[in-house]
Amino acid sequence: MTRKILVLPGDGIGPEITAQASRVLAACQARGLDIQVEEAPVGGAAYDLEGSPLPESTLARARAADAVLLGAVGGPKWDKLEDISRRPEKGLLGLRKELGLFGNLRPALLYPQLAEASSLKPELVAGLDIMIVRELTGGIYFGQPRGIEERDGQRVGYNTYVYSEAEIERIGRVAFEMAQKRGKKLCSVDKANVLEVTMLWREVMERLSPEYPEVELSHMYVDNAAMQLVRAPKQFDVVVTGNMFGDILSDAAAMLTGSIGMLPSASLNASGQGMYEPCHGSAPDIAGQGVANPLATILSVAMMLRYSLGEGALAERIEAAVGQVLDDGLRTADIAAEGERTVSTAEMGDAVLAAL
Amino acid sequence: MTRKILVLPGDGIGPEITAQASRVLAACQARGLDIQVEEAPVGGAAYDLEGSPLPESTLARARAADAVLLGAVGGPKWDKLEDISRRPEKGLLGLRKELGLFGNLRPALLYPQLAEASSLKPELVAGLDIMIVRELTGGIYFGQPRGIEERDGQRVGYNTYVYSEAEIERIGRVAFEMAQKRGKKLCSVDKANVLEVTMLWREVMERLSPEYPEVELSHMYVDNAAMQLVRAPKQFDVVVTGNMFGDILSDAAAMLTGSIGMLPSASLNASGQGMYEPCHGSAPDIAGQGVANPLATILSVAMMLRYSLGEGALAERIEAAVGQVLDDGLRTADIAAEGERTVSTAEMGDAVLAAL
Ligand SMILES: CC(C)[C@H](C(=O)O)[C@@H](O)C(=O)O
Ligand SMILES: CC(C)[C@H](C(=O)O)[C@@H](O)C(=O)O
Repeated sequence: MTRKILVLPGDGIGPEITAQASRVLAACQARGLDIQVEEAPVGGAAYDLEGSPLPESTLARARAADAVLLGAVGGPKWDKLEDISRRPEKGLLGLRKELGLFGNLRPALLYPQLAEASSLKPELVAGLDIMIVRELTGGIYFGQPRGIEERDGQRVGYNTYVYSEAEIERIGRVAFEMAQKRGKKLCSVDKANVLEVTMLWREVMERLSPEYPEVELSHMYVDNAAMQLVRAPKQFDVVVTGNMFGDILSDAAAMLTGSIGMLPSASLNASGQGMYEPCHGSAPDIAGQGVANPLATILSVAMMLRYSLGEGALAERIEAAVGQVLDDGLRTADIAAEGERTVSTAEMGDAVLAAL
Repeated sequence: MTRKILVLPGDGIGPEITAQASRVLAACQARGLDIQVEEAPVGGAAYDLEGSPLPESTLARARAADAVLLGAVGGPKWDKLEDISRRPEKGLLGLRKELGLFGNLRPALLYPQLAEASSLKPELVAGLDIMIVRELTGGIYFGQPRGIEERDGQRVGYNTYVYSEAEIERIGRVAFEMAQKRGKKLCSVDKANVLEVTMLWREVMERLSPEYPEVELSHMYVDNAAMQLVRAPKQFDVVVTGNMFGDILSDAAAMLTGSIGMLPSASLNASGQGMYEPCHGSAPDIAGQGVANPLATILSVAMMLRYSLGEGALAERIEAAVGQVLDDGLRTADIAAEGERTVSTAEMGDAVLAAL
């Protein structure tokens, strides 16, 4: 059965990095992987073309796909758009919501070849390998009511942080299962000493815990988690948290590695359909120069093969190829040490293809 | 006119560290500072005594005081309290709310004598001096409605993240004024690409900006701010943000220094009345052993002298005394390098008094 993959290049460096990832997909195809790859616009690019960051046709094709590969969205060009609902970010949030991609996996993995790049002392991050499991379709990102309105003669802005037991349970299960496959330690992050919604979060995590007897569950307040990530990040294996805290902590964790240009992510729904994207953003400042690092996007293809296409062996080959090019000393500007020779986006793509 | 100071030792190491700070207050008194110092229970200690983490008499005395010095609240003993409204944290939150202490100042300052303690590479944190201005009586901490209730056969938890223009404006002014006195750079942290409440936040900060022409205002999304704190913290001078983001970012920033046992904080209301407390918590694991670091609490006394009592010169003398004891090599366990000789809480207090 031919599997459908939809590539959404998006904005900024998105087109450049997805171009290299598409070459990797083509190479897999050439080796017998039965896929069909299409492209569609999203984000600011889609707004410019069709007046919407998530055109109906893009959404329909995403729904029909087995997996989506996204570059990145957003840029200063669209930051001043008066109509918030047409901003590039809304394309991304719309895809997550419409496809039901509640399970966001964000690994923070330190490549030994790039250990120098971390801003932390080497001994604190050597071997770092954290998996952040972030709830992605609920919480304060989507909670109702929300808005800005006039009350007693002045404007008031408000959003609602809300989770149901069912929403907490399903992300909890993703996290417990992930922990079971990894180091068997799960840290649930909340602010249960202040927020009722996270008291319920903690309670549901506790309730699930006996079903995963091998996994050691702990709880941490979000302020402490932010500290512990800086102080001693290797204490973490799998971290599970809501949409907003996950946004903050996964970026902090990614930055601990010093090479956010290396980190992929997966967003999964209940039927294994997924959207895959680099952790980094659209980097408008370097867009179009051919210097962006395509490795996070290429590694997102590996995650796609593993989680949505059931091709774990092929995923490992791609990951090994990336390891190989790092061993060979290839560096795009973002991961180069001072004075080191750098390669272009396309040269990095060439090297990965050669190593495959 | 005699100024009234209320000391609230609280829980865990609170009594030990406030005891040393009280000695410093007494020394100021002996040198002619016209103050009257009282003590009252708060937090778990107050709950144990009177069944409430913020007894009426404590609150009344806090209202009557010119300034409050708080140790710390909370501990495992009270974590299982069914009635959330009686948890130690509620004593702290109640004081903030009842006294209207909306302006929370949290410096993240690296003491050159302790540069080694940071988990970041020395060149990234040398000279670090950030002031985080956190809104403390609004936002999601206090927003209504809130709770856990049954909807469609399952429980749902919810909280409300809400700010009015007036609330944003008054914390904005505190931050702009702080920036004006410091490096003239203010970074406002929000999530204006997702949350309406923070779109209003950004708009109000923009509106205030022309009134402070010397201050350069920038905006940053909270996820990026968490990354930038790890990547290049010295880019920040003053940071202003809401209650929840401020909780997370101020702890991360404090941890960058590696010596959270050194960091004081101030929480001010519109009339200059303030509550002063160390950034660190009640550390129940080391409570009662006489090994806690009293310096953050002693430095909180300095902040109190500066912000609530108009005694800036005296504040500087205390800060200089703390610098002196660090120069002299005195270290409590939390700030000692491996193998370094450590002193007790009381010995550290002795040394500061001697240096005064
Ligand atoms: C672009 C933005 C809406 C998004 C988010 O906040 O989720 C991004 O920061 C991310 O983490 O994928
Ligand atoms: C104890 C807790 C309620 C408090 C907060 O979240 O504000 C603490 O973390 C702090 O930052 O002072």
